[in-house]
Amino acid sequence: MTLGNDWFTEIHADAGSAFSLKLTKKLHEEQSAFQRIEVFATEDYGNLMTIDGLYMVSGRDNFLYHEMMTHPVLFTHPAPKKVVIIGGGDCGTLREVLKHPGVEAAWQVEIDERVTRVSEQFFPELCERNNDPRAHLLFDDGIKFMKDAAPGSIDVVIVDSTDPVGPAEGLFTEAFFRACFRALGDKGVIVQQSESPLYHGKILKALHAAMRAAGFGQTQTLFFPQPVYPSGWWSCTMAGKNLDLKTFRETDARNKAFETVYYNADIHRAAWAMPEFFKRLLEG
Amino acid sequence: MTLGNDWFTEIHADAGSAFSLKLTKKLHEEQSAFQRIEVFATEDYGNLMTIDGLYMVSGRDNFLYHEMMTHPVLFTHPAPKKVVIIGGGDCGTLREVLKHPGVEAAWQVEIDERVTRVSEQFFPELCERNNDPRAHLLFDDGIKFMKDAAPGSIDVVIVDSTDPVGPAEGLFTEAFFRACFRALGDKGVIVQQSESPLYHGKILKALHAAMRAAGFGQTQTLFFPQPVYPSGWWSCTMAGKNLDLKTFRETDARNKAFETVYYNADIHRAAWAMPEFFKRLLEG
Repeated sequence: MTLGNDWFTEIHADAGSAFSLKLTKKLHEEQSAFQRIEVFATEDYGNLMTIDGLYMVSGRDNFLYHEMMTHPVLFTHPAPKKVVIIGGGDCGTLREVLKHPGVEAAWQVEIDERVTRVSEQFFPELCERNNDPRAHLLFDDGIKFMKDAAPGSIDVVIVDSTDPVGPAEGLFTEAFFRACFRALGDKGVIVQQSESPLYHGKILKALHAAMRAAGFGQTQTLFFPQPVYPSGWWSCTMAGKNLDLKTFRETDARNKAFETVYYNADIHRAAWAMPEFFKRLLEG
Repeated sequence: MTLGNDWFTEIHADAGSAFSLKLTKKLHEEQSAFQRIEVFATEDYGNLMTIDGLYMVSGRDNFLYHEMMTHPVLFTHPAPKKVVIIGGGDCGTLREVLKHPGVEAAWQVEIDERVTRVSEQFFPELCERNNDPRAHLLFDDGIKFMKDAAPGSIDVVIVDSTDPVGPAEGLFTEAFFRACFRALGDKGVIVQQSESPLYHGKILKALHAAMRAAGFGQTQTLFFPQPVYPSGWWSCTMAGKNLDLKTFRETDARNKAFETVYYNADIHRAAWAMPEFFKRLLEG
């Protein structure tokens, strides 16, 4: 069975697999200063944004990623007020962060302004909090931003990056995590999108090591489904400063005043269960 | 990006998506009395068996499905001795079942003997327990087998079927679950593979209803990743006779004397966490 030209396909070259979505129309394409941005209408996945030919976000399944990148880390910090998002140009992470009434300010530091402008046009639902007075949209280098941040000034850092090649490579390094550690206050927490547990064990192992080397006492990977990303199984990894990553404001999570599609307190607790092979990976 | 002829692709027509694996060689093809069976060598997923053009089992990721179809249900029953597998012709479920030392007999009731013979040839690792004296390989109609089983004679039924179309359709009905209910002893448990939580909500909702209508007091869906199946996110659904599906022999699971790749007691407990949208689906 061969797919026609009305399909978008991403090949996962290191795993000999590919995932495709059926398209109905190309809505947009441009070469920004940083990357090639395209938007398609799909048959069943809503609108789709790709960057350099890779899935970035679809209307149908982005709730999984965006909710898991935000609510676990925000309910783990005892009282998050100041939140920094590195990357996250589609604004879906920002939207979830600002659902938390205790958050006083959220800075989204995306290097490519065009990603956000394109998202405003084609994913308005992800951008519905962009005009919240607590939202600060900066278009700048996230690595520099964290290096320049005042020590102890941030409660939560969310690294909503692309894969660790090209511009995002520096976001997976000990030097970057050291800058984050310095900028985070006591009980500060960072979360980093951390690829597929099935395909990217090496990256995950190195990420845990880099976070610990940077000073974080605890690290914890959370697992969740994400159909458009390689293998359909994805993860994010948290690191904490003087706090237990398996304690969270569970009552607040159960009584949250906002709606989610995937996340709840049971899902939070479930997400950190480590498969046998993953335990062996981290220990080995 | 178009995939060449050296890829196997399954299109999920109801979801406008497709998953592909890169092939290195076709190893086998035949039309059995029931279906078209093909086996390919893939670049990174080991050997792959397809039935009627749909993914059945790959060497790389079958551990997820086979472990989640067996260990949760076997550790939920207080002392499973007699186990029936309906379908399961690749023998991977049988292998996991027979890792449990307390199991005295396991009947694998597969309608198509050719699936098992092909699996013996191309997936010898899945068939390594086929000669266990406790294993009974029957090639017969699973629906008839359950109807004819002596009342109260079975502890666990595992329905390891294909999608609920064609030959497997009857395995998703109240009539079939009634037969299972009758054949199960006190504290008996049944588990049925139950498709993608993202794509097949209707099937899942109907499955819960059919199981309850058949007399089972509790039903519980378990969620797990499975890259080669539609959406990469899969599920199985348990139904119990006079027992709580959220109580399991956790100490036995923690001290199990056999190896697994995915399953452990934490994963067991995590698998039943219901996403918000799924709660609404079952309630709505």
